[in-house]
Amino acid sequence: MTEVSAVLERLRRTTDTIVGETDLAERLASSRPLRIKYGVDCTAPDLHLGHAVNLWMMRHLQDLGHKVVFLLGDLTTRIGDPTGRSETRPVLTPEEIETNAGSFLEQVSLVLRTEPEVFEVRRNSEWYDAMDVATLLGLFSQVTHAQLMARDMFRERVAAGREIALHELTYPVLQGYDSFAINSDLTIVGSDQLFNEQLGRHFQQRLGAAPQVVITSTITPGIDGGPKQSKSRNNYIGLTDTPRDKFGKVMSLPDSLVQTYAHVYTELPLDVVAGLGEAATQGGPPAREAKLRLASAIVTRYHGANIAKAERETFIQLFSEASQPTDLPEVIVEDATVLELLLVARPGDSRSELRRLISQGAVSLDGRKLSDPNEPITLTGPMTLRSGRRTWHRLVPRA
Amino acid sequence: MTEVSAVLERLRRTTDTIVGETDLAERLASSRPLRIKYGVDCTAPDLHLGHAVNLWMMRHLQDLGHKVVFLLGDLTTRIGDPTGRSETRPVLTPEEIETNAGSFLEQVSLVLRTEPEVFEVRRNSEWYDAMDVATLLGLFSQVTHAQLMARDMFRERVAAGREIALHELTYPVLQGYDSFAINSDLTIVGSDQLFNEQLGRHFQQRLGAAPQVVITSTITPGIDGGPKQSKSRNNYIGLTDTPRDKFGKVMSLPDSLVQTYAHVYTELPLDVVAGLGEAATQGGPPAREAKLRLASAIVTRYHGANIAKAERETFIQLFSEASQPTDLPEVIVEDATVLELLLVARPGDSRSELRRLISQGAVSLDGRKLSDPNEPITLTGPMTLRSGRRTWHRLVPRA
Repeated sequence: MTEVSAVLERLRRTTDTIVGETDLAERLASSRPLRIKYGVDCTAPDLHLGHAVNLWMMRHLQDLGHKVVFLLGDLTTRIGDPTGRSETRPVLTPEEIETNAGSFLEQVSLVLRTEPEVFEVRRNSEWYDAMDVATLLGLFSQVTHAQLMARDMFRERVAAGREIALHELTYPVLQGYDSFAINSDLTIVGSDQLFNEQLGRHFQQRLGAAPQVVITSTITPGIDGGPKQSKSRNNYIGLTDTPRDKFGKVMSLPDSLVQTYAHVYTELPLDVVAGLGEAATQGGPPAREAKLRLASAIVTRYHGANIAKAERETFIQLFSEASQPTDLPEVIVEDATVLELLLVARPGDSRSELRRLISQGAVSLDGRKLSDPNEPITLTGPMTLRSGRRTWHRLVPRA
Repeated sequence: MTEVSAVLERLRRTTDTIVGETDLAERLASSRPLRIKYGVDCTAPDLHLGHAVNLWMMRHLQDLGHKVVFLLGDLTTRIGDPTGRSETRPVLTPEEIETNAGSFLEQVSLVLRTEPEVFEVRRNSEWYDAMDVATLLGLFSQVTHAQLMARDMFRERVAAGREIALHELTYPVLQGYDSFAINSDLTIVGSDQLFNEQLGRHFQQRLGAAPQVVITSTITPGIDGGPKQSKSRNNYIGLTDTPRDKFGKVMSLPDSLVQTYAHVYTELPLDVVAGLGEAATQGGPPAREAKLRLASAIVTRYHGANIAKAERETFIQLFSEASQPTDLPEVIVEDATVLELLLVARPGDSRSELRRLISQGAVSLDGRKLSDPNEPITLTGPMTLRSGRRTWHRLVPRA
């Protein structure tokens, strides 16, 4: 195995906090393959680059001979919330759970290796189906109400007057005990899971095992600059997105995110990352070039260099000003404000959608970016209106 | 069976609230024997007259053909609190649990009938040992955190900064589900159990059964006038107290409690109860006569009229002024305060114990009650000091 410090260094690139760093160094230094807990619930997955940060760290450890234990939380998904009040856990049928599990495995295998030497699939029903009520209550007795209510999610729900069903309150305990059950050495999670995984350490210690190391990973903003990638905001780059979509979404990033994305989502050397960040701050062609480089690196990571090269070429051809189509749809207009012109050219869109396009800097007239929806425009002859990346109109003044 | 209204009337004598009174009337009117849940935990029992209020109501219903289901909460007692932090549930070994269960049954049978037609012993381990974790979590999903935290006991503990272990938070759910498991029609409990038994109704309804009726019984002050009888205050009349102790403890009651005790702890007609209350307010011989009547009624209830009669005679003989022993122990004293005299006469007692005796009005000198511990006493010749009901000294002034 590689030298420990090199491994730690590489993990640190995308690490927020490490609980038990000394333990981690010791365990990496031993020749024993570590067991890395990767716990998921069994709702329909749609993994994005944010999730993949953890997966790539695990993949790196797999390449060094360590084993990922892919743990499906099927027991808890099976409970769901029969009252339908829960916001976090829908009820799923056993068939849905199996379908989701298969889909999860498929997406995960886009990053992780799945040979049995370095990958193991487990379900928490294995131990919970065999556990009796007295034993479970015995686990509960090791945790206090106050400890559980310290969890952000619970506090926020109480503060917002939303309900927490009792079984939901027990889930962190179950998730914590899972760490003991699979003999976890290490788990790499989002910071929202830190609390539950700390409970894992608590149970392991209580039950006489060595506590797992917990790494929380860096959280990166969504492609719209929002706090993080999420399905509900549709601001994410999905692992199952086509290479073209991945490439296009990277190109749509705000300039300010280029360096962060390059740091977290690629393995480009850090000096290159710094250079891309520098270029992005300049805007214009250097920023565009930096994004092309970033998009290529990301697509390369998931689909290989050849596909990345082809997508880069396609992109340049499709979306460069130079490649503006020649037979543009013609729209007859009178002098009007920017917003009014857009309303005529794109009758299917609402005012608020068009305002958003403008505010995103996606509207230009003969190459000049229009940022004020109320700016009056006087047409002295035909002009080219671009709105969004792929839409052009030829504006012709009414005779 | 007796007419329903008569049954309800009799129950009402010692009832605080009835949840589901219409249901109770309907069920009593049907010819079906009702199942009456009497749930207890398996800690060491020491039942007192306060507990017996519920037992006598159940006994009355047994006499009408209904069945008491004596439910031992052995599962939950088995869990206890391994961390030793809980104030409510000590850890017990299986042997201790069995011993306590036997002792409970013995004490309960001082009031309840135990023929199988009207008495059934169950343990909640019967269903919880067979229940799987998923089913238990399913029960938990039917209750919210907010519902549970509404319970006084939990709120008070949180407010006082004391911990609640998670398993304790789940106990009301278990106790509630018990009602479904034993098909309870009715339960008669102290008001502190109302919350848990309401959860019983909740589960019965959720699971498609008719909800149990819940009767909470009147709580009566301790024999010292404190808020209720309790072991820790040693202010209770135990079911296993000897007839003599029961008689004596009733005689020691504050006059103001005579009517309440007669109402709740006897079946004396209500006009007689009112008469006793009236007599008690007069103090002196009428109050004493009222207490003798009350003590006789209570001892009769538990030990029969003959024993009650004998205890009454013994008491009168022992504790009347007329029967003051003639050969009193002599104590040589000098002039001193009341407290100092007592310290000489009763060297085994502490100052605070003696002060309490004085404040209880239990100290007299030649028949005059002494209420001020600092009152200076001048002895002009031998005098009789009485302290407590049974202790006399002959005080002789030092020559």
